[in-house]
Amino acid sequence: MSPDAKAIVLLSGGLDSATVLALAGKQGYACYTVAFDYGQRHRAELAAAAQLSAKLGAIEHRVMPIPLDAFGHSALTDAEIAVPERGGEGIPITYVPARNTVFLALALAWAEVLDAATIFIGVNAIDYSGYPDCRPEFIAAFQALARLATKQGVDGVLVSIEAPLINSTKAEIIRRGFELGVDFALTVSCYQADEAGRACGRCDSCWFRREGFAAAGLADPTRYQS
Amino acid sequence: MSPDAKAIVLLSGGLDSATVLALAGKQGYACYTVAFDYGQRHRAELAAAAQLSAKLGAIEHRVMPIPLDAFGHSALTDAEIAVPERGGEGIPITYVPARNTVFLALALAWAEVLDAATIFIGVNAIDYSGYPDCRPEFIAAFQALARLATKQGVDGVLVSIEAPLINSTKAEIIRRGFELGVDFALTVSCYQADEAGRACGRCDSCWFRREGFAAAGLADPTRYQS
Repeated sequence: MSPDAKAIVLLSGGLDSATVLALAGKQGYACYTVAFDYGQRHRAELAAAAQLSAKLGAIEHRVMPIPLDAFGHSALTDAEIAVPERGGEGIPITYVPARNTVFLALALAWAEVLDAATIFIGVNAIDYSGYPDCRPEFIAAFQALARLATKQGVDGVLVSIEAPLINSTKAEIIRRGFELGVDFALTVSCYQADEAGRACGRCDSCWFRREGFAAAGLADPTRYQS
Repeated sequence: MSPDAKAIVLLSGGLDSATVLALAGKQGYACYTVAFDYGQRHRAELAAAAQLSAKLGAIEHRVMPIPLDAFGHSALTDAEIAVPERGGEGIPITYVPARNTVFLALALAWAEVLDAATIFIGVNAIDYSGYPDCRPEFIAAFQALARLATKQGVDGVLVSIEAPLINSTKAEIIRRGFELGVDFALTVSCYQADEAGRACGRCDSCWFRREGFAAAGLADPTRYQS
């Protein structure tokens, strides 16, 4: 890796992507972070992402508006669909159609403009909600696409999609982030966090987070709504 | 194909995608068209797309705003970069980083919401500007990705990315569209068309179009700025 290698880091404001940003910085990348304003009900994560980006030393942070709520069909983007409490079979209604494909496509556009060959994403296929676009085979397929999609690829640059947490448990991620100095109090995981970033404590994402801190044996700084 | 099969058709307002829409309709698909307001300087194509969608019998037309101009780096999205006249080596400055990746990603999101298994795109790798994301290998890679990216794919739906014009010459496309009744007077190809949709006559896209009509032996309905 060249000493001035740039990386795009997808930053949601949650604890996984914050840990990924800390990792990428530790590896020496000049990090450019991007968050997506896609009509999500948990908009507090956008403020969290901006704070984390600055705190973890990213060079630039962007918020890209992308109206996925125009399509609806997810509890995260359609106010008419309630966020489920934990449980249920299969892919839950919090799944947002093609979300990571859209996010990575936009990251790829920015990567090409910045001449960055690396894109980091904080997906995880262990303690997760079963979303198809968090699986290793999806990441591999996007990397294959990325190498064909752009002028960079034609010029011989091997764009890499890095998902360093994909096989980690939530507890392992939390321990890693803790070691890297991530301030988890700034992160927002809840699917229906209020404006102040306080969590519901009942959705899938809250459960994974709470159990992760417990398994990691670390104090959980999450603020709850009640 | 089931009699009520739905397809998403990417509709730019140019003649290729209009021909693709006519083809998809002829094949019996219930067509849903989408155009992208991505900060392109030739905004007249958006009005053209809406007209063509209605005229060619699509069920619904959407315009998705997607601020690719925030990244710049292309003569099509950055007013500071002039649209080149014909000629030059390699991939021209009209190339928009990752454009078709972003467009197909959003089409995939809508396809999943509509339960459509087919996405049509009017890319062409013969009489074209050498954009990497118009090549057959790019389309194949996106299809492979699409089948892994969504709940549809997990449920066994084999999403298909159809690029029926990819190996056609511009003249062949024009003849085909003509046979299918496409009103080419409604289409806008020029990279710097004015608000009324009148073409510059000098950019790559104007050249390919003019030569296509000549080679097809059909009257060219293009309106020029002077």
